[in-house]
Amino acid sequence: MRSNMNIDRQTIEQAHERIKSYIHRTPVLTSQSIDDAAGCQVFFKCENFQKVGAFKARGAMNAALSLSTEQLKKGIATHSSGNHAQAIARAGKILGVKSYIVMPRTAPEIKKRGVKGYGGEIFECEPTLQAREATLAEVIKKTGATEIHPFNNYQVIAGQATAAKELFEEIKDLDVIMAPVGGGGLLSGTALAARYFSPKTKVIAGEPAGSDDAYRSMQSGKIEQAQSQTIADGLLTTLGDKTFPIIKELVSEVITVSDVQIVEAMRMVWERMKIIIEPSCAVPLAALLKEKERFRGQRVGIILTGGNVDLEKVLGLMTG
Amino acid sequence: MRSNMNIDRQTIEQAHERIKSYIHRTPVLTSQSIDDAAGCQVFFKCENFQKVGAFKARGAMNAALSLSTEQLKKGIATHSSGNHAQAIARAGKILGVKSYIVMPRTAPEIKKRGVKGYGGEIFECEPTLQAREATLAEVIKKTGATEIHPFNNYQVIAGQATAAKELFEEIKDLDVIMAPVGGGGLLSGTALAARYFSPKTKVIAGEPAGSDDAYRSMQSGKIEQAQSQTIADGLLTTLGDKTFPIIKELVSEVITVSDVQIVEAMRMVWERMKIIIEPSCAVPLAALLKEKERFRGQRVGIILTGGNVDLEKVLGLMTG
Repeated sequence: MRSNMNIDRQTIEQAHERIKSYIHRTPVLTSQSIDDAAGCQVFFKCENFQKVGAFKARGAMNAALSLSTEQLKKGIATHSSGNHAQAIARAGKILGVKSYIVMPRTAPEIKKRGVKGYGGEIFECEPTLQAREATLAEVIKKTGATEIHPFNNYQVIAGQATAAKELFEEIKDLDVIMAPVGGGGLLSGTALAARYFSPKTKVIAGEPAGSDDAYRSMQSGKIEQAQSQTIADGLLTTLGDKTFPIIKELVSEVITVSDVQIVEAMRMVWERMKIIIEPSCAVPLAALLKEKERFRGQRVGIILTGGNVDLEKVLGLMTG
Repeated sequence: MRSNMNIDRQTIEQAHERIKSYIHRTPVLTSQSIDDAAGCQVFFKCENFQKVGAFKARGAMNAALSLSTEQLKKGIATHSSGNHAQAIARAGKILGVKSYIVMPRTAPEIKKRGVKGYGGEIFECEPTLQAREATLAEVIKKTGATEIHPFNNYQVIAGQATAAKELFEEIKDLDVIMAPVGGGGLLSGTALAARYFSPKTKVIAGEPAGSDDAYRSMQSGKIEQAQSQTIADGLLTTLGDKTFPIIKELVSEVITVSDVQIVEAMRMVWERMKIIIEPSCAVPLAALLKEKERFRGQRVGIILTGGNVDLEKVLGLMTG
């Protein structure tokens, strides 16, 4: 039980109460045609329709709302080139406090505009983890802001857990719940939500084979480093020391999938559900389809994580 | 009141009860970024996530369920190359009766497969309205099946009305509700739902300028013929003698939009809401954006009608 002591049932319930008025309760969608293809019943929790376009709005908001007035006064900070950056800037705007976002100078203009749109202050750095961490440390030293890490933070994890909590409230008796794994914030939150709110539901992760660090970590029992040989560029992160113990204890399995399988699953969602998702978001469905014999006839929940797709780039994948 | 006497409040309530377990209660989605662009609050009723991918599942199901056992025994029939064909075939399958679908031989393979997937029997004909009607008459003569027209049928209209009814139940105090207009089944149903369930809400239609028969019909006071100079190929139909009187009485206005405006609105929905819609579905949003000064600060409901997009074709529009 050691790994979970920081997040109990009440922690997640409180997180949900705390963020409820700032997030969408996203819809759960189904598709007969995908059910037919998968040979089971699939319930998609559509976090792609969440504020800032991803589940990240939940964790960031919960973490920001959990800070003291004293802390908040000095602002919040993070390094991220993705949706977490926007989620933190949005939380800062809602709470009327400064947000400081360290971004690699190579981050797409559209992401920077997103952050600026919420009034976030951007600090550019070289595109290495080292430079990001060093720049963030500097910013925090100067401003006194509190760091909110994208995943290695218990309040972030508790916030991400609320997506699965909502799914369990709406869809009963799921045999399996699936989420993708990058740094493990969503996966560990999902696993904790299953433990407390739907203990019979098995938790399975999907991971790109080209960055299968979570798979290898589960085998070796220690945190392995991520690679970056995949188009699922939202999932290139290595697990954290707060997320891994939870995942190790509560996740049944990590299924890895090739980029070809990811694109096929993405295309299936585009064509049959008419939802635009990015490759990272298609990973759990790809995992389900790869191993579909094992899920035959079951009720499977999948968290569509969202992500702010670069439309031109994804159109290229679809037509190319 | 003459025009509405066939569909009163209770007719729509009964339709809703009747079809409830056979359709999705589709989600209502919002987008801060579209609200910002439009200068008002927009609530999208996502019928693109409806069974068979469009609101057509409602009307077809209601009409089929309204037939007598005697009638049902001999099956149901229609001519359609679109979503109504699938919706009728699906209704037939659910009710365990035969469905006969007359389709132009030029209809896309994917639509034919959709109909066959539900066990519908397809009769091919030349791609003219005359050939379609003649073939349908023949099929009905031979089988004794009951025709369910795609829009010129009160039970179909009452079924389509349930989409707006659900939207009114979920979102209060809408200033405006918008729908596209082709044959007018959805629009007349929407207008009736507004009258009975949200009488302060103004009903406005969007129509492609390249097939502006509803606009001209409202001017002239009689049914004008549709043209076909638009990419919004789901809206090429002329109004019917059952839909037009309702529209004439209850719809405030028809706003026409160019194909360029339609593609811009479609692109906006793809990019900002991450939903794949076809050109026809983007027409009301295009109308709103065209006249946005008039809607400033208002609460506007839009029915995203759905439609089974030809992905390759729409990708072409987006990238081309």
